[in-house]
Amino acid sequence: MNPIDSALKLIEILATIAFALTGIIEARKKKMDLIGVYMVSMVTAFGGGTVRDMCIQHYPLFWIRNDEYPIGLLALCVCSMLVATQRTWNTVWMVRLLGVLDAFGLGLFCATGVQYALQAHCGMFVSVLMGVITATFGGVIRDVLCNEIPNVFKPTELYATCAFVGAASQVACLNIGMSDITALVVATGIAAFIRILAMFYDITLPKPLS
Amino acid sequence: MNPIDSALKLIEILATIAFALTGIIEARKKKMDLIGVYMVSMVTAFGGGTVRDMCIQHYPLFWIRNDEYPIGLLALCVCSMLVATQRTWNTVWMVRLLGVLDAFGLGLFCATGVQYALQAHCGMFVSVLMGVITATFGGVIRDVLCNEIPNVFKPTELYATCAFVGAASQVACLNIGMSDITALVVATGIAAFIRILAMFYDITLPKPLS
Amino acid sequence: MNPIDSALKLIEILATIAFALTGIIEARKKKMDLIGVYMVSMVTAFGGGTVRDMCIQHYPLFWIRNDEYPIGLLALCVCSMLVATQRTWNTVWMVRLLGVLDAFGLGLFCATGVQYALQAHCGMFVSVLMGVITATFGGVIRDVLCNEIPNVFKPTELYATCAFVGAASQVACLNIGMSDITALVVATGIAAFIRILAMFYDITLPKPLS
Repeated sequence: MNPIDSALKLIEILATIAFALTGIIEARKKKMDLIGVYMVSMVTAFGGGTVRDMCIQHYPLFWIRNDEYPIGLLALCVCSMLVATQRTWNTVWMVRLLGVLDAFGLGLFCATGVQYALQAHCGMFVSVLMGVITATFGGVIRDVLCNEIPNVFKPTELYATCAFVGAASQVACLNIGMSDITALVVATGIAAFIRILAMFYDITLPKPLS
Repeated sequence: MNPIDSALKLIEILATIAFALTGIIEARKKKMDLIGVYMVSMVTAFGGGTVRDMCIQHYPLFWIRNDEYPIGLLALCVCSMLVATQRTWNTVWMVRLLGVLDAFGLGLFCATGVQYALQAHCGMFVSVLMGVITATFGGVIRDVLCNEIPNVFKPTELYATCAFVGAASQVACLNIGMSDITALVVATGIAAFIRILAMFYDITLPKPLS
Repeated sequence: MNPIDSALKLIEILATIAFALTGIIEARKKKMDLIGVYMVSMVTAFGGGTVRDMCIQHYPLFWIRNDEYPIGLLALCVCSMLVATQRTWNTVWMVRLLGVLDAFGLGLFCATGVQYALQAHCGMFVSVLMGVITATFGGVIRDVLCNEIPNVFKPTELYATCAFVGAASQVACLNIGMSDITALVVATGIAAFIRILAMFYDITLPKPLS
C-alpha cells in the first residue's frame, strides 16, 4: 500500500467512526437502548453508500463485503455506552474533533461516491448528485429514524453544499485530465476545507424569499 | 414521434414539475434551504418510480438515465426560490392548476408503473400495486422527510384510490385485448378524472369503525 | 410436504397476519383510511424481508413472487375495518395472542433471513444482522410512516435482541454441523421463547449511562 492509499484508508476508518458517533449521540439523546443505538449508528455510517449502491446497482454492498466494519461499530457502541455519559460528547474539544473528522468523512465519502457513479456510467451531473447522496443520506436516515427533520436540509451551516462543491471540482479535475486518485484527494480536501470553514465561521446558504 | 407519444411526453414533463413543486412547497413550509428543497423535490418527483424500480430490478433508474430531469429540477428550485414567495403557491388558480397537473401525473405515473411491472412478469394484482406505489410513494417519502404522517394515508380526498382504480382498469383493458398504449391512455384518463372529481367535490373513502 | 415444512408454512402465514395486524392497529390509531392501513400493514409484514432482499440482491421479492400474500392482506384490512373497533385489539387475550404469534414471526422471519444471507455468501456476523433486519425493519418502517420513533429502538422489553440471539444460535448450530432445517427450527424456537419470556416478565436491556 502506497502512502496515499494508507492515508485514505486511515481517513475512511476515522470518518466512519465519526459518522457512527453522530448516530450514537443522536440515538442516546432519544433514550434508545443498545440495539437502537447500534442500528442508528450503522445507518448513519453506511446509509448513504447503501442508497447510492442500490441506485447504481453496485453490489455487494460495502458493509456486507467488509464485515469488520459492522463488527467494529458494535464494539464502538458497547464501549461508548459503558464509558461515556452524554456530557462526554459535549465538551468543546470533542465537538471540534468530531466535527473535523466528520468534515473529512464528508469529503472522502462524497469523492468515492462520485468515482463509483462514474464507473457505473452515470452522467457528470448525476455523479455529482451520487457523491452528495453518499455523503449526506446516512445523516438523513439517522434523523428520520430519530423522528426529526433531516438536519442537512435545515438552513444551518453549509454541509451538503460542501459535498456538492467537492464533487463538482472532482468532475472538473477529471475532465482536465487528472488521475482518479489525484482528483479524489483534491475533492476530499476542498469539501473538508469548506466544511471546516463553514463550521468555524457559521457560514450558511443565503435565505430564500419567504 | 406520433401525436400520442408527444402528448404523453408533455404530460410527463408537466406532471414531473407539478410533483416537484408539491415537494418544493412542503420543504419551504419547513424552512429548508436550497439543498433541502432540491432533495425533497427530487424525492417527490422520482421517489415512487425509484422504489418501484428497486422492487422489480428495473435498471438504470429513470432519473439516472435521463439526467436532464434532475438538472431541470435544480433550475426549477433555484428559480422558485428567487421569484416565488409562499403566497404565490396559495392563490386559488395556482392551487387548481397544480392540482390538475398533479392529477394527470398521478394517472400517467401509475399507468407507466403498471406497464413496467407487467413487463417484469409481475402478477396482475402486484402490477396494480406497483402502479399505486409509483404514483404515491414520492409523496410518502416527501412527507416522511418533512416529519409528517404521509398525506396519502390520511382520510382526505381520494388520491391513492384513484391510482388503484386507474391501474385496475388498465389491467382490465389489456385483458380484453387493447394495445399497451391505448390501455395506458385510458388508465391515465380514468385516474386523473376521478382525482379531479374528488378534489373539486371533496370525495373521501368511507370512514371505518373507530 | 413433510410435517416440518407444513408447520413452518403455517407459522409463516399466522406470523404474517400478526405482523400485518400490528401495522393495521398502528395505522388505525393514526386515523388513516383504507389505503393507508393497507400500505402500513404491507410495509410491516414485508418491509423487513424487502430491505434484506435489496441488500443481498435476492430477487424477485417474496411478495411479488407470491401475490396471494398482498391479496390476502387486502382482504384482512377490509375485514378488520368492517368488523373490528379499536377496542377489539385491546382485550387482554387478543394482545396476548397477537404477541405470541408475533414472537413466532420474529423467530421465523429472522431465521429465514439468516438462511438467505448465508446462501448469498454473506459472512456470519452480517448474516446474523440480516436476520435481525428481516425480523425488525418492517416494524421500523411502520413506525417511521406513523411518525413515531421506532418502537424496537426504545428501551422496552427485548425484541430485536431476541432475534439477535436466535440468529446467533442458528449460525452456531450450522457450524457444529446441524442441517439447515434443524438450525432454522432451533433458532425460531429460541427467539420466540426469549421474546415470550421478555413479554410476560418485562425484561429489558440494561440501562446505559446517561
